[in-house]
Amino acid sequence: MVYPLPAALISCGDINGKMNLLTISWLGTICSDPPMCYISVRPGRYSYDMIKESGEFVINLTTSDIAKVTDWCGVKSGRDFDKFKESGLTPAHATLVKCPVVAEAPISIECRVTEIKKLGSHDMFIADVINIIADDRYIDSETGAFNLAAAGIMAYSHGNYYSLGKRIGKFGWSVMKPKTKRRIERL
Amino acid sequence: MVYPLPAALISCGDINGKMNLLTISWLGTICSDPPMCYISVRPGRYSYDMIKESGEFVINLTTSDIAKVTDWCGVKSGRDFDKFKESGLTPAHATLVKCPVVAEAPISIECRVTEIKKLGSHDMFIADVINIIADDRYIDSETGAFNLAAAGIMAYSHGNYYSLGKRIGKFGWSVMKPKTKRRIERL
Repeated sequence: MVYPLPAALISCGDINGKMNLLTISWLGTICSDPPMCYISVRPGRYSYDMIKESGEFVINLTTSDIAKVTDWCGVKSGRDFDKFKESGLTPAHATLVKCPVVAEAPISIECRVTEIKKLGSHDMFIADVINIIADDRYIDSETGAFNLAAAGIMAYSHGNYYSLGKRIGKFGWSVMKPKTKRRIERL
Repeated sequence: MVYPLPAALISCGDINGKMNLLTISWLGTICSDPPMCYISVRPGRYSYDMIKESGEFVINLTTSDIAKVTDWCGVKSGRDFDKFKESGLTPAHATLVKCPVVAEAPISIECRVTEIKKLGSHDMFIADVINIIADDRYIDSETGAFNLAAAGIMAYSHGNYYSLGKRIGKFGWSVMKPKTKRRIERL
């Protein structure tokens, strides 16, 4: 019942060989320094062995534009479909891992597994983040800041996919002095 | 860079003694059966020892209505403030743990720590979910289903808080037969 979460496309395998995509929401950041993430995957899923054997995966954030194929990649198995081919998503070369990245994703996070933790229905893959690829269409040319909101990032909450709505505030806004606050609001 | 995430209020300590609140986004579901969650907390935070000693915490989901105090609980320390008192949030009795729950939260998830994993800047508290308290204002009296969207749940993404926006689809909608789909859309 922890929501909202990403509906992330996990890419795995080898871009020059067998590769796959799966959609999951049981994922997140577990440490800032060093940067570490986790994904929890059922051992029965087709991608499970691929991730276990290679020790690598990529977390691709998803947007409203690719919502339908993201859903499709979550309900269908790579045993039955070549998911990149069927979905129309484009496999692109990562920087440090052999897995493909999803070219349509605004952010792709390259991960290397450090531990697999058996929990029950799911195994948790604990991983180091070794590289992040950001779509430069959403990087402000003046400030260099990445604008994730402009990318139309999608949330998954309790069985439904949503776009993000109204911006309520910025981290720390509850304690900002009026002058600072006004400046930020003008931006 | 994994977003969107909840901005969850974690309550800890003892409702009859010392208690605290902290806001975090490094949290999530790690297993469905048994239901397990994690939160990652910096060892320097005031709540860290409280959670470590009691082995208990509660994940309270947050809404637009309590966005500002949620932000405030993330930037201020329990060393300097009685956060329940200052924020105006109401501590209520949990069912199985001694920690308070936040009465204003639509969902409160009672957790018992099974392992503390040192990672670097953050330690990961791995926990069993032992009870969930849902605000019955959002439970459909006919179907018994909980409507998290109606609660106005809030997302945190890359430094900003957002409400959820347009509903894009439902899990599995990409493979639904037209008839089923029409029926769901009418609901």
